[in-house]
Amino acid sequence: MKTAIEELETKGRAVKAAAHRLAYLSTDIKNNALHAIADDLLARKDLILAANQADCKEAEASGMSAVMLDRLMLNENRLEAIVKDVMSVAALPDPVGETFDAHTLPNGLQISKRRVPLGVIGAIYESRPNVTIDISVLCLKSGNAIILRGGKEAIHTNSALASVVQEACKKAGIPEGAVQFVNNTDRALVDHMLKMNNVIDLIIPRGGAELIKFVSDNATMAVVTGGIGVCHTYVDRSADVNKAVAIAFNAKVQRPTVCNALDTLLVHADIAERYLPLIATEWAKAGVEMHCDERALSILKPVSSLKLVPAVDEDWGKEFLSLVAAVKVVNSLDEALEHIEIYGSGHSEAIITEDNQAATRFLDEVDAACVYVNASTRFTDGSQFGLGTEVGISTQKLHARGPFGLKELTTYKWIIRGSGQVRT
Amino acid sequence: MKTAIEELETKGRAVKAAAHRLAYLSTDIKNNALHAIADDLLARKDLILAANQADCKEAEASGMSAVMLDRLMLNENRLEAIVKDVMSVAALPDPVGETFDAHTLPNGLQISKRRVPLGVIGAIYESRPNVTIDISVLCLKSGNAIILRGGKEAIHTNSALASVVQEACKKAGIPEGAVQFVNNTDRALVDHMLKMNNVIDLIIPRGGAELIKFVSDNATMAVVTGGIGVCHTYVDRSADVNKAVAIAFNAKVQRPTVCNALDTLLVHADIAERYLPLIATEWAKAGVEMHCDERALSILKPVSSLKLVPAVDEDWGKEFLSLVAAVKVVNSLDEALEHIEIYGSGHSEAIITEDNQAATRFLDEVDAACVYVNASTRFTDGSQFGLGTEVGISTQKLHARGPFGLKELTTYKWIIRGSGQVRT
Repeated sequence: MKTAIEELETKGRAVKAAAHRLAYLSTDIKNNALHAIADDLLARKDLILAANQADCKEAEASGMSAVMLDRLMLNENRLEAIVKDVMSVAALPDPVGETFDAHTLPNGLQISKRRVPLGVIGAIYESRPNVTIDISVLCLKSGNAIILRGGKEAIHTNSALASVVQEACKKAGIPEGAVQFVNNTDRALVDHMLKMNNVIDLIIPRGGAELIKFVSDNATMAVVTGGIGVCHTYVDRSADVNKAVAIAFNAKVQRPTVCNALDTLLVHADIAERYLPLIATEWAKAGVEMHCDERALSILKPVSSLKLVPAVDEDWGKEFLSLVAAVKVVNSLDEALEHIEIYGSGHSEAIITEDNQAATRFLDEVDAACVYVNASTRFTDGSQFGLGTEVGISTQKLHARGPFGLKELTTYKWIIRGSGQVRT
Repeated sequence: MKTAIEELETKGRAVKAAAHRLAYLSTDIKNNALHAIADDLLARKDLILAANQADCKEAEASGMSAVMLDRLMLNENRLEAIVKDVMSVAALPDPVGETFDAHTLPNGLQISKRRVPLGVIGAIYESRPNVTIDISVLCLKSGNAIILRGGKEAIHTNSALASVVQEACKKAGIPEGAVQFVNNTDRALVDHMLKMNNVIDLIIPRGGAELIKFVSDNATMAVVTGGIGVCHTYVDRSADVNKAVAIAFNAKVQRPTVCNALDTLLVHADIAERYLPLIATEWAKAGVEMHCDERALSILKPVSSLKLVPAVDEDWGKEFLSLVAAVKVVNSLDEALEHIEIYGSGHSEAIITEDNQAATRFLDEVDAACVYVNASTRFTDGSQFGLGTEVGISTQKLHARGPFGLKELTTYKWIIRGSGQVRT
């Protein structure tokens, strides 16, 4: 183990030295590296897919669930989607070097802020191999160096992908050492990475709630926390019922395993008898199980072919990540707001309403990264919002909230130009 | 102790409830509260100064140092300066509600970011009583609720100041409970505050390095770290010698006890024989002791009336907070940059040069909150930079860097307005 930790320390020194030079590299060199990564991913497709098949075989043999296997698996389509994301990041403007808040003080000092990279980003992630590429390209484009530590189950795939990134960087003239990959899957190396605050400026955990909590609790540097979404959609008394059906259906069904999917449906009592049977019927066709409070249950009991379960306390504030929704009838917008305040996770919350005043109150009073009027919470996503891809969805309030993209991987420094000014 | 902790928990619930309503309060009400605070500070001057005298008497009796006593002491002038800061914060624009990064997606979704308060700010501070007012007014103006925990030695003064704030808030119509003051000075309450991450969104420690480290190490919520400045001024070979003397003199002497004062002077070898005797003579007149490397020592030995000490390793990277400066002769801009990278604390760094290329390299390559060309590092300050006052100087890279003012006490939420859009 000692040797592996020493090796990690060596990688740390190399990545820090590289970060220093990456910080003021030209946009052209960075984009060239991204194009080279895209080209090489396609050129080495067979090698990458073979490595992934080896991972999937081992995972299957060790009894990995179908859901997890699906996350791990790469095929030509998925690889092409990854390449497309690389190209879209290459096409985005370079955030580094932007000057803002410029002003001249009465004493003649010229003061401004300049956007600069954060420095070194550490990524600790689980089975999705696309994270290796997503985080690498976002970090490189934003001038940050990286240490990648992927999951054990994806080690062959990640090694192959990291080699592609490293060699493409070399060809493009990115400072050597800018992308480090930890190819030892011993857990002790994660513990050690979390202590390297002299090297790593920000740690990004990508994976399940357990990993995120572990990293958050143990990191000695800044962490982007997020990825957990308990998302509510509130159907107001004045909602357009058709919109409300389409939106709640989409929010729950389109991709139930992700953080921006609907967890709890709140329905105003005045519209519940009209609305609930409609959404329930649609949801039932898609296989959604509804955990209903008493009033929702009494409205829905007469409707045939539904999967109804009486809600228990634990259903409120639960992230289901599956075709299950909690359903509650509320007496007022106030009651909906209060429920969201207590049970929301600060990720994405929506109101369906045709009443401007209700929409305004919801936007004002809900404290979450993304607040929606008349749209599906499934839109909370870096590429949907026009940020290219993302390193994650932040549910913390400091630094960046919601999709965490290129700009969020930067900080700024104050630049002050004088001609001999002193403070009196 | 149990009762005091329960009381703190009660204050936590009250402050969180208030934060929710403070978040969308009108600018007028917030400004009215600030004006009422300013008025009442003057109206109750005698009461406040009497409380302060009680604190100072106790502190003196317990053997507090003259420097610390000076920090604790209020008089009419200092109180008037505090009132002036309150008025200048009242005059600043309200950061809350600002809409930015607005755009419409191809599917018609209207997306933007809206600036909102962080929520509840916790302040843990030592002897300077002005912190009670500074942090209160910055938080109120930015729509944040506050829990204040001042030092034991200033308890009478802080109680008096907190009462002024609370009563002014009441008169102005600020939601009750928005400003909480912990009037029990038991250390256990600090430990408990640092665990209240269900209430407090951001903790601001104000005081010495030990307090800041303790809060940083033990807080379970976000912390603004800062307040420690190891500041370098590098005199380049092409420097204007007169500017370089005036700037280094000001940076060291104008207020040596603060974080933006000069700690280490780096001088290019080509200019050292001309420059060093000039600055050393000026510094000596002001009582500055110079801890010199060998080359600086050999240049300065012939000069009379200097306080010279051979530098030891610990002098590099040391925050002196007194009339002491470390002095080193370097062979190149590269050597200066390398020294700053190793020993700087990411606070404020300056180059004195007439060479544009050297200035550009310094601005590009130095990684610090504030980077100066031809000016004194003493300018790193919220009110000097035009932010009104400040809650501190951040040396962290995430969220905000440098002076931490109104805008830095906010976050944003994404606002998404649709007309029934769903994700496909």
